[in-house]
Amino acid sequence: MSEQLPDLARIRDAAARIAPHAIVTPVLRNAALDKLAGAELFFKCENLQRGGAFKFRGACNAVWSLDEARAARGVVTHSSGNHGNALAIAAATRGIPAHVVVPEGAVRAKLDAIVRAGAILHRCEATQAAREATAAHIQEETGAELVHPYADARVMAGQGTVVLELMQQARRLDALVTPVGGGGLTAGCAIAAHGLVPELSLYAAEPEGADDTARSIAQGRRVEPFVPHTLCDGLRTLVGAPNFEALRAHGVEAMTVSDAETIAAMKLLWAELKLVLEVSSATVLAAVLKQPARFAGKRVGLVLTGGNVDLGDLPW
Amino acid sequence: MSEQLPDLARIRDAAARIAPHAIVTPVLRNAALDKLAGAELFFKCENLQRGGAFKFRGACNAVWSLDEARAARGVVTHSSGNHGNALAIAAATRGIPAHVVVPEGAVRAKLDAIVRAGAILHRCEATQAAREATAAHIQEETGAELVHPYADARVMAGQGTVVLELMQQARRLDALVTPVGGGGLTAGCAIAAHGLVPELSLYAAEPEGADDTARSIAQGRRVEPFVPHTLCDGLRTLVGAPNFEALRAHGVEAMTVSDAETIAAMKLLWAELKLVLEVSSATVLAAVLKQPARFAGKRVGLVLTGGNVDLGDLPW
Repeated sequence: MSEQLPDLARIRDAAARIAPHAIVTPVLRNAALDKLAGAELFFKCENLQRGGAFKFRGACNAVWSLDEARAARGVVTHSSGNHGNALAIAAATRGIPAHVVVPEGAVRAKLDAIVRAGAILHRCEATQAAREATAAHIQEETGAELVHPYADARVMAGQGTVVLELMQQARRLDALVTPVGGGGLTAGCAIAAHGLVPELSLYAAEPEGADDTARSIAQGRRVEPFVPHTLCDGLRTLVGAPNFEALRAHGVEAMTVSDAETIAAMKLLWAELKLVLEVSSATVLAAVLKQPARFAGKRVGLVLTGGNVDLGDLPW
Repeated sequence: MSEQLPDLARIRDAAARIAPHAIVTPVLRNAALDKLAGAELFFKCENLQRGGAFKFRGACNAVWSLDEARAARGVVTHSSGNHGNALAIAAATRGIPAHVVVPEGAVRAKLDAIVRAGAILHRCEATQAAREATAAHIQEETGAELVHPYADARVMAGQGTVVLELMQQARRLDALVTPVGGGGLTAGCAIAAHGLVPELSLYAAEPEGADDTARSIAQGRRVEPFVPHTLCDGLRTLVGAPNFEALRAHGVEAMTVSDAETIAAMKLLWAELKLVLEVSSATVLAAVLKQPARFAGKRVGLVLTGGNVDLGDLPW
């Protein structure tokens, strides 16, 4: 595992490395949502990324960073869904095996996608300890390389490529809002954004029922493990240690939103942008609409992280 | 009303005319759907167009084709929803009044959008005769210009701009599939496509419960009015006279699909492309999956026409 933080140069390397495999996702604008927010919103549509989430960027960068010998032994990870799916697809682009440890309670659509991508699925209990123990065991048995879902510099660098694209597509931004779970996206984007525009304001949207990042920032140190209570299945993870370090270094502000606020924002996004988005993705719009004064008249980038939902079980 | 057919030059003029207002919508690819179809599918995402449907193109071209004096008297149309919404938005871009006649039974989300865009709404019975009579009455009273939803050369030219973009984005296509209702899109696209690539195969996907185009093509003349029975609310219209003429001239083949096939295709599109699409839009994928031999190994353009659905009332 590679734990230090990437810099802008490594994020640029990642962009070149994943270019043959990843999609340059579109940025959508919407007049009705701009009016509602009182700001100019630039929606980066990572639900249109391969595998239906930004996670493919980090996984792809990690897979293609391995030398031949290490790559041949395959990769392993634990993930509530999107990272596992992303690693499965990334491994398939290189023709190497992928092992994915999935905790109970993960979204059905995400499990199906992992299996379809050709990965070997391993189920475990829905605790951080069980995930890590199962992954460590597989690593030992197969020699597969661990690609941690967020506390990995290769993964953070890959996720940071979202911002390289977004800044080019939107030309100028005043603020950026990403959802925060483990913090791979938030850390990678913070480093990339401040590498390009040091004065950009950075916000991390977080469910009230999984507000460890907000509490960690307030206390100046990572809070203890806790049991998350949120419909945002992609954001039930404690922020990683290197990720938290990056968030602090870049002055990322956390903004918490209730699940009700997130679901209202999700419905707005579906209706206005005509995009299928998972609940976690809607935290960013919920945050902007909850504290409009912070964003009034500004050009705001919002990363819509994924679109893997059970269509038969929508939250409205 | 302008009833003759446009040519490629008029479609190019339309593209220039609407460029300051319309969105160049993305074309999406999807490995899973390609595999399922056994073909290379290029999805033109008109659900991401302004107003959530391709209809904005034709309406915008019509509105900006008017001279100052005629424009000042406003525009009027009848529409089950998307064209009305499109004309309302297009009129707003020029600051002129729009009257929209909407038959009973139209989708709620579409009505709300028309009102939000600032148009004056007029309700009528759900028959072709009632629509036309109400629109004629308003025309007489206000002097507003009728912008027919499909039997209008300005509208067809605007819809044809979909293909100018798609051919540039996909580079080469062997076949094109559009849904057919009144035939504004199908006629405009046929003229544009054959103007650029005379040997391109053209298909019109149609619900079995509104198969007047298929029957008209089979009989060599437009069939009589009939009562449509389909969930595809955007395709309940009889093909227009000039539209049918264009379809015949360009050898467009009709392909009928059941509502069950369309709904299955709609769910696939939502799950794989992560797009919110209305039922009518899914007829094109349903048609390709129903007769795969026609498309095997080919590069096929599919126009996804719109995304205005009631999110609380999905057909699964």
